[in-house]
Amino acid sequence: MNSTNHTTNDGIHDLFSVSTNDRESAARCGTLNLPHGKIETPVFMPVGTQSSVKGLLHRDVSDIGFSLILSNTYHLFLRPGIEVIQRCGGLHRFCAWDGNILTDSGGYQVFSLAAFRKISDDGVTFRSHIDGQTFHLTPETVFAIQRDLGSDVQMALDVCTAPDVSRKEAESACRITTAWARRAAASWRADRESGTSSYRGALFGIVQGNFYEDLRTRSAEDICELDLPGIAIGGLSVGESPEQFEHFLKFTTQKLPSHTPRYVMGIGTPDYIFAAVEAGIDMFDCVFPTRTARTGAAMVPDGRLVLTHAKHTDSTIPIEDGCPCIACRSYSRAYIRHLLKADEMLGPILLTFHNLTFMARLLESIRASIRAGRFLLFKREFLHRYLTGHRR
Amino acid sequence: MNSTNHTTNDGIHDLFSVSTNDRESAARCGTLNLPHGKIETPVFMPVGTQSSVKGLLHRDVSDIGFSLILSNTYHLFLRPGIEVIQRCGGLHRFCAWDGNILTDSGGYQVFSLAAFRKISDDGVTFRSHIDGQTFHLTPETVFAIQRDLGSDVQMALDVCTAPDVSRKEAESACRITTAWARRAAASWRADRESGTSSYRGALFGIVQGNFYEDLRTRSAEDICELDLPGIAIGGLSVGESPEQFEHFLKFTTQKLPSHTPRYVMGIGTPDYIFAAVEAGIDMFDCVFPTRTARTGAAMVPDGRLVLTHAKHTDSTIPIEDGCPCIACRSYSRAYIRHLLKADEMLGPILLTFHNLTFMARLLESIRASIRAGRFLLFKREFLHRYLTGHRR
Repeated sequence: MNSTNHTTNDGIHDLFSVSTNDRESAARCGTLNLPHGKIETPVFMPVGTQSSVKGLLHRDVSDIGFSLILSNTYHLFLRPGIEVIQRCGGLHRFCAWDGNILTDSGGYQVFSLAAFRKISDDGVTFRSHIDGQTFHLTPETVFAIQRDLGSDVQMALDVCTAPDVSRKEAESACRITTAWARRAAASWRADRESGTSSYRGALFGIVQGNFYEDLRTRSAEDICELDLPGIAIGGLSVGESPEQFEHFLKFTTQKLPSHTPRYVMGIGTPDYIFAAVEAGIDMFDCVFPTRTARTGAAMVPDGRLVLTHAKHTDSTIPIEDGCPCIACRSYSRAYIRHLLKADEMLGPILLTFHNLTFMARLLESIRASIRAGRFLLFKREFLHRYLTGHRR
Repeated sequence: MNSTNHTTNDGIHDLFSVSTNDRESAARCGTLNLPHGKIETPVFMPVGTQSSVKGLLHRDVSDIGFSLILSNTYHLFLRPGIEVIQRCGGLHRFCAWDGNILTDSGGYQVFSLAAFRKISDDGVTFRSHIDGQTFHLTPETVFAIQRDLGSDVQMALDVCTAPDVSRKEAESACRITTAWARRAAASWRADRESGTSSYRGALFGIVQGNFYEDLRTRSAEDICELDLPGIAIGGLSVGESPEQFEHFLKFTTQKLPSHTPRYVMGIGTPDYIFAAVEAGIDMFDCVFPTRTARTGAAMVPDGRLVLTHAKHTDSTIPIEDGCPCIACRSYSRAYIRHLLKADEMLGPILLTFHNLTFMARLLESIRASIRAGRFLLFKREFLHRYLTGHRR
């Protein structure tokens, strides 16, 4: 058997179709056809680490316009545990979310959160950041965990590295990521072909390679060879310079096939999103909009608006004029500042409503600009205002 | 001028009408006709200390069925300050609440929160619990503050005492409370008769008297003589035994006129609410349902349900079967437990939705039982289950 047979047999290439290619850049519009509904791309995914987008009801996330959220395998595996979620009917029923869920592999959290991480060819051993218990995960168990969660899009277990590791370490991480992706792909294909599994989620492979062009090239070739439904670029936005980010983003994306959805993990600021879309990326996720909200800051066309600032004390205007979110429709800057100063939950809640609405509208505008053939113009105008707005 | 003239002139007795008197108890149903709409009594008022019912949008509070909330003068006076709220168009516009707002006088918070309190005949001097600044408030300034907030129901400044103070201290607090109520009433009447004020909020006097029958009698007589639109019973539920609470509640309520709405401050557990309604009380407020929610406990017909308990780990049933709240319609006990364990904001939010819905439904049932002439039967049945449910 080879991979072409597989993709023909199970129709996984129906997952994604491109409707518009930008003429001036690699930007494109498309549709992801996922088990819980279709998604227009480029798409931003809000993060619900524990399967809850912090501060919002799932109904609110949906009302804002999102139908694909990210949730973290590492966190759910540790608490409440996969068996609990299975007994409750899978992750969608557990968290009462009718939309799509993408789960990461946990590889990044083991890298960034775990008290201890030891990688072998077999898998990764780590100590929980919650209670210090030791766990061992393999590409096969991580596939099974995400299958049991019922993830609409699941990620192959990978090894993420920091920007400052040695060439040797980067090479080893890259080699293991490929080996694990092969095993994850084999598990996923076996499950689909078993005839006994109802699981229909898509598996994405992850390209690593740190900040070495030859390693990125090799990793991209290896992962593409697996002919999986989608490909993610990992190991970016991990502390490198914006120039490095943009260079390796473009460099890596160029190695990926055009018919496959491309996902860059962990980006959520407008400048990075525009860079990713321009490079031909279709999907991204980040805690930035929701975490920023909880620190008391709003995303507005002029940039970052710090609501705790004294200048908003008497301000009866909304966060953003013309924004349709509940925070802007009902509440003033002065009131939101009061809530933040008084440490009232409603402050972060309202800013979360706003920032996610801002992101939903930004992506809508990006898609419209691609369709209208004026993406680069829109990017220039938007970022000029966003990055310099408060200085004018 | 005497008080009868005033009430005839400005029609303040249109504020309240009783529609049903229970035959077996002093319980009654009525309607409060407030500036921001009519309120069916007996009514429970959720507390929005900082003008936000913690964790909920104002739209949600309204959707649950509440159109009268309580907010704390003391807190708003200290932060953001009355001038800020005035510049933002008054408290209703500031917090975007179209319903009614009752504000307390701050007397209780000065008693329970302030770092320092000194009472003189003129007023009260206290130090802010936030930054230690010293303030002086008089019955006249407290009237003006609540007028400037635009309170639909405002309370006269009073002196609250703990259950263990000396007779002498209780007597002095009682005397000053009456003197201050007279001055508050004079301010309120002068404002109404000025011809230049658009303020239409009602002023309630507060009966004190600690746990001395003769002082309660004297205070009730003094406050009733002012012929204000409503009367509150203060100084109860401050640490005394349930027997003392019930005795002094009944004892004091019997001294109050029947045409005036009666309000007991700071009660919100079903047993105290039933006792208050039975004694003829029309209004009450308490942080209990919302604060309990934030500790991870739900109010259900069987009593208190602690959602963090391990027995709910796999439980796919809702908090309360048949409850129409969003928590019960969409989420399982297992999921809410997970949210609480993972310290996700959505846990307390969902429990706040539930507990306030529980309270709204309880009061609806109480009103229906009074109208149907079976209030005491309903009280017996409800409390039997509520107080013993989890032991069965």
